[in-house]
Amino acid sequence: MNTGDFDLKSYLSAKRALIDRALDRWLPAATGFSAPVKEAMRYSVGAGGKRIRPILILAGGQAVRANEHHLLPAACAMECLHTYSLIHDDLPAMDNDDLRRGKPTCHRIFGEALAILAGDALLTLAFELMTRPELTSGIHPERINRAVFVLAKAAGENGMVGGQAADILNEGKTVEPQVLNYIHYHKTAALLGASVEIGAILGGGHEEDIIRLRRYGQTLGLAFQIKDDILDIEGDQEIIGKPIGSDERQKKVTYPSVFGIETAKAKALELLREAISLLDPFDHEAEPLRAIARYVIDRKR
Amino acid sequence: MNTGDFDLKSYLSAKRALIDRALDRWLPAATGFSAPVKEAMRYSVGAGGKRIRPILILAGGQAVRANEHHLLPAACAMECLHTYSLIHDDLPAMDNDDLRRGKPTCHRIFGEALAILAGDALLTLAFELMTRPELTSGIHPERINRAVFVLAKAAGENGMVGGQAADILNEGKTVEPQVLNYIHYHKTAALLGASVEIGAILGGGHEEDIIRLRRYGQTLGLAFQIKDDILDIEGDQEIIGKPIGSDERQKKVTYPSVFGIETAKAKALELLREAISLLDPFDHEAEPLRAIARYVIDRKR
Repeated sequence: MNTGDFDLKSYLSAKRALIDRALDRWLPAATGFSAPVKEAMRYSVGAGGKRIRPILILAGGQAVRANEHHLLPAACAMECLHTYSLIHDDLPAMDNDDLRRGKPTCHRIFGEALAILAGDALLTLAFELMTRPELTSGIHPERINRAVFVLAKAAGENGMVGGQAADILNEGKTVEPQVLNYIHYHKTAALLGASVEIGAILGGGHEEDIIRLRRYGQTLGLAFQIKDDILDIEGDQEIIGKPIGSDERQKKVTYPSVFGIETAKAKALELLREAISLLDPFDHEAEPLRAIARYVIDRKR
Repeated sequence: MNTGDFDLKSYLSAKRALIDRALDRWLPAATGFSAPVKEAMRYSVGAGGKRIRPILILAGGQAVRANEHHLLPAACAMECLHTYSLIHDDLPAMDNDDLRRGKPTCHRIFGEALAILAGDALLTLAFELMTRPELTSGIHPERINRAVFVLAKAAGENGMVGGQAADILNEGKTVEPQVLNYIHYHKTAALLGASVEIGAILGGGHEEDIIRLRRYGQTLGLAFQIKDDILDIEGDQEIIGKPIGSDERQKKVTYPSVFGIETAKAKALELLREAISLLDPFDHEAEPLRAIARYVIDRKR
C-alpha cells in the first residue's frame, strides 16, 4: 500500500480549480434588489478556502469509480454549506471573529444582518444544488435523496450545529473527555465523514464501501480537528491567516487543552493510521484519499 | 362553485392537530450535550403558529388526491423552515423583535447565539425530514427530489431570503412599486406558492395542475402579505399577539404605505378572487384551498 509517488499537490490544485469554476458558475450573480446578499455569498465562498470537503466528495466518489460530473453539484453544495457555517460562527454573537483566512469576516464587510442572511442563503443553496434538475440529470434519484439526507443529518442539530452549540455552551468550562469528543465529532468529523460518504453514494458504491468510506471520513475529521487545535497553538499566523491562540483567549474546549499537546499529536497520528487502514480494501483509485489523510496531519494551515 | 358549507374551522383544527403531533414526534428531544439548542427549536416551533404553510401542503395535495401520509413529512419540514425564518428575522441585527405570537422571541429566552443556531438547525431539519428514509418510503424518489428543489429555491436568495434582504436594504426609503412587489413576492408569496406546489408534486399531480396550484399559492401569498400589512395598521393587538404599528415604526416598506390602505384592501380582494378562479378546473377536493383563500382575507390575526 505504498503511495509515495501520488502527486497530491497537482491533484489538489486541479480539483480546487474545477470546484472554483463550478462555484463561480452556480453561485447567483450579484444583481437585482437583493444584490448585496448575493455579493456577500460570493465574497465568503471566494475567500480562498482549502476546499477539503468538496475534494473529499470527489475523492470518495473516485474510490468507487464514480462519474465525476455526478459529484460536482454535491461538492459545490458542501462548500456552500461549509462557508455558511464559517459566516455564522464568526458572528459577534458567536465567536466574534474579525478575520477569516486573512480577510475581514463577512459581517465586518456587509454588516450582521446581511451576514446572517448570506449564511442562510448558502445553506439553502446547498440543497438546491443537490437537486437542481439541470445539474442532476443522469443520477439515480434514490442516490440523490440519500445524499441530501446524509448532508442534512451531518449538518443539523445532531451533527455540526449540535457540535457548535455544545462548543459555545462549554466555553470557559472544565469539561469531561466525553464532552470534548462530542464537540469534535459533531463539529467537524460528521461533515467530513458525510463528504466522503456522499461521494460514495452518488458514485454508486456498494453498501460496505459506503460504510467504510464514511468511517474513513469521520476518523480523518477527528484528526483534522485535533490538528486545527494544535495549529492554533503552534501554527504560523502568517500562513494560517488569523491570530494564533484565539482558542485559548476564547476559552474554547480543545484536545490539547484537555490532554496536553504531546498527547494531542500522538492521537492525531493514531487517527491518521486508522483512517488509512480503513482504505485497505480499495485499489489505486483510493490514492487521493490516502494522500489527503497524510496531508491533513502534515499541513501548516 | 358555491363552497359556503365547507367547515373550514374544523378542517384547520384537525390539520393543525395532525401537524402538531407529527412535529412533536419528529423534532429532536431536548437531550444530550446540545440540549439547549433543541429546546430552543421546540420552543419556537411550539409557539402556536397558524400552520398555514403546512396546511397548504396538505390541501394542495388533496386537490390532486394525494395520500396524506406522503405529505406529512414535507408539511412539517415547511413549518420548520418557516419557524427558522421567524427566529432569524426577530434577531437584534434584523427586526429586533421582543415578542412573537404573544411570547418572548427565541433570542430573548435563549440568547442570540443559540437562536441563530436553532434557526440554522430548523432550516437543516427541513431537508432532513423531506428525505428521511423511514418517513418517505413509498414516495417516488423523483417527486422527493423535485419537492426538495422547489423548497430550496423558494426559501433561498432567489426566494424568501432575497425578499428579506431587499426588505432590510430598503427600510426607511421611498421605494418604487416594483421594489415593493419584489419584496412581497419573495418574502411571502414564494414560500406559500411552494407549499401548494409541493403538495401537488408529492401527491402526483399532472404538470398543468402543479403549475396552476403554484400560481394559486403565489397569488394567495401576495394577498396574505398585504393583509398582514393591513393588520399591522388596523388589527387588534390582543388578537395578533404583538404591538400594532411596528412596520411604521421600523419604516418598513408595505403595500398600505406605498398605495394607501383603501387601495391595499381592494388589491387584497382582487388577488383573492384571482386565486379562487385559478382553482376552477378542480373539483370538491379543492374546497379546503377555496376556503383558505377566503380565510386569509377575513382573518383577524
